[in-house]
Amino acid sequence: MPDVTIVEVGPRDGFQPIARFIPTEEKLAIIQGCAAAGLHRIEAGAFVGTAAVPQMADAEAVLAATLALPGADPQMLVPNARHARRALAAGARHLVWVVSVSEAHNRSNIRMSPADSVAEFAALLPELEGVRLRVNIATAFDCPFTGRVAPEAALDLVGRLAALRPDAEYALCDTTGRADPAHVAGLHAACAEAFPRVAAWAFHGHDTYGLGLANIMAAHGAGVRVFDAAIAGLGGCPFAPGATGNVATEDVAWMFARMGASTGVDLGALLPVARRAAALPGGCPGGRVRQAMAARPAHLAA
Amino acid sequence: MPDVTIVEVGPRDGFQPIARFIPTEEKLAIIQGCAAAGLHRIEAGAFVGTAAVPQMADAEAVLAATLALPGADPQMLVPNARHARRALAAGARHLVWVVSVSEAHNRSNIRMSPADSVAEFAALLPELEGVRLRVNIATAFDCPFTGRVAPEAALDLVGRLAALRPDAEYALCDTTGRADPAHVAGLHAACAEAFPRVAAWAFHGHDTYGLGLANIMAAHGAGVRVFDAAIAGLGGCPFAPGATGNVATEDVAWMFARMGASTGVDLGALLPVARRAAALPGGCPGGRVRQAMAARPAHLAA
Repeated sequence: MPDVTIVEVGPRDGFQPIARFIPTEEKLAIIQGCAAAGLHRIEAGAFVGTAAVPQMADAEAVLAATLALPGADPQMLVPNARHARRALAAGARHLVWVVSVSEAHNRSNIRMSPADSVAEFAALLPELEGVRLRVNIATAFDCPFTGRVAPEAALDLVGRLAALRPDAEYALCDTTGRADPAHVAGLHAACAEAFPRVAAWAFHGHDTYGLGLANIMAAHGAGVRVFDAAIAGLGGCPFAPGATGNVATEDVAWMFARMGASTGVDLGALLPVARRAAALPGGCPGGRVRQAMAARPAHLAA
Repeated sequence: MPDVTIVEVGPRDGFQPIARFIPTEEKLAIIQGCAAAGLHRIEAGAFVGTAAVPQMADAEAVLAATLALPGADPQMLVPNARHARRALAAGARHLVWVVSVSEAHNRSNIRMSPADSVAEFAALLPELEGVRLRVNIATAFDCPFTGRVAPEAALDLVGRLAALRPDAEYALCDTTGRADPAHVAGLHAACAEAFPRVAAWAFHGHDTYGLGLANIMAAHGAGVRVFDAAIAGLGGCPFAPGATGNVATEDVAWMFARMGASTGVDLGALLPVARRAAALPGGCPGGRVRQAMAARPAHLAA
């Protein structure tokens, strides 16, 4: 067991905003590279409406190929029961259910109220026996439409879901990148105290305002050991040119390695994959380690 | 008193690596903008050899103009006694004495051993009555030539200097950007414990590997309340294209504002200055807030 687990979400959260379709074989080359570098948990894609998110149209093929990789544990994001069933039919054994704390965001993202998302999750549970579950609590800190989210509202939503499936992994998601370290530490600590039966906590941050790694450290200080990150920091918002998105996987791996914490990631193997991902046409890469390492003398590269 | 003090080091550490000479009036426009936005402590320049650092050739004029700004407290970096006397003759009332823990770095930077730097500092002290002092402990964590620096070596250097002038402010400097949050928190805690008579501690980080804000939070957790930052994240190494340098002042101000901590900085007033600094020819700007804020709806801009 590594000290810290990085969940590679680039193939879902990173690729999703890229308008130009990434050929399936290119997606798979990056996924294979990530897995070979030691990233076993990979959010390989989403089962969503392909009209809304055409980039995810090849989810079945990507899932099948990822399942075939030695040691890989692909998780597939699903917004509702219909798409969850599509994922299961395609062979998914690890699903990511996403609900927003913010009603405005859930309606925009999932086209129903958070309460209806919870009800649909509850109704689906009998079909999810033996399926590993991650639950993403979107807009846990801040909403793109309504701003800062009250901790009480986030706790309320987590509580309703955790009562149904405490054995799932719950991720507090900083959807906008506007959470700050105090907010992240405080909400994670409050959740851990309020819901001690929850199996695992994760933090999904964004680096839009540069706080990605600071927030990961804040969550780590509150006991979190599972962190989402995207190869090359992909996931920038296409409506905010230059505003990068997810925390870069290579930056997270580098930070923990510097602190002597194991992530299971071989950074030397990951960097060429990150460079390949950063070069994807239409992508908006972020992160620093990729560029900083390129200029290091070999004896200082570790 | 703000909860946290940001020292604006862009006009020294940010401008210094820019090869093309920035006209004095452009430097002053940025300094004036920073001061007007609430940054009172400004490292306005360095008194150094102009053959080695031609960008700092106008230090006298920049200092004189900065001293005339209402509320401004310019500090001037000096590498040795000769340049300190130049700074004093030009009217400086706040000096930054810099010594590296790493002998290789001090010889490269100051052209003497750290022991000789300490001896020269000691001999100069009678001339520094009434002068405010910042002491920069360069390569406190990591050296560009020899890699990781042992905490014991950093503590030893701080101890020798603090015995001479405990009333100074001591800054532990992450010269390479390769310090990690655990290292930063640990060394600051060890220094505070070992040298309780030291008047104030500061942290000078770089964001080359993306750890600038995470390291600031780590230092903050160890009790530090003074942080160096450079407008627009200037200070990138010209030998590492794309590898940004200092932590961006606007990112630090934004982070603390989100946490409800006062820095005295008016971010709305600072952002146009940051955009101007980011546009300096030959600069290597970093930071995220500048770009992220440009794309925000007005009601979410705070």
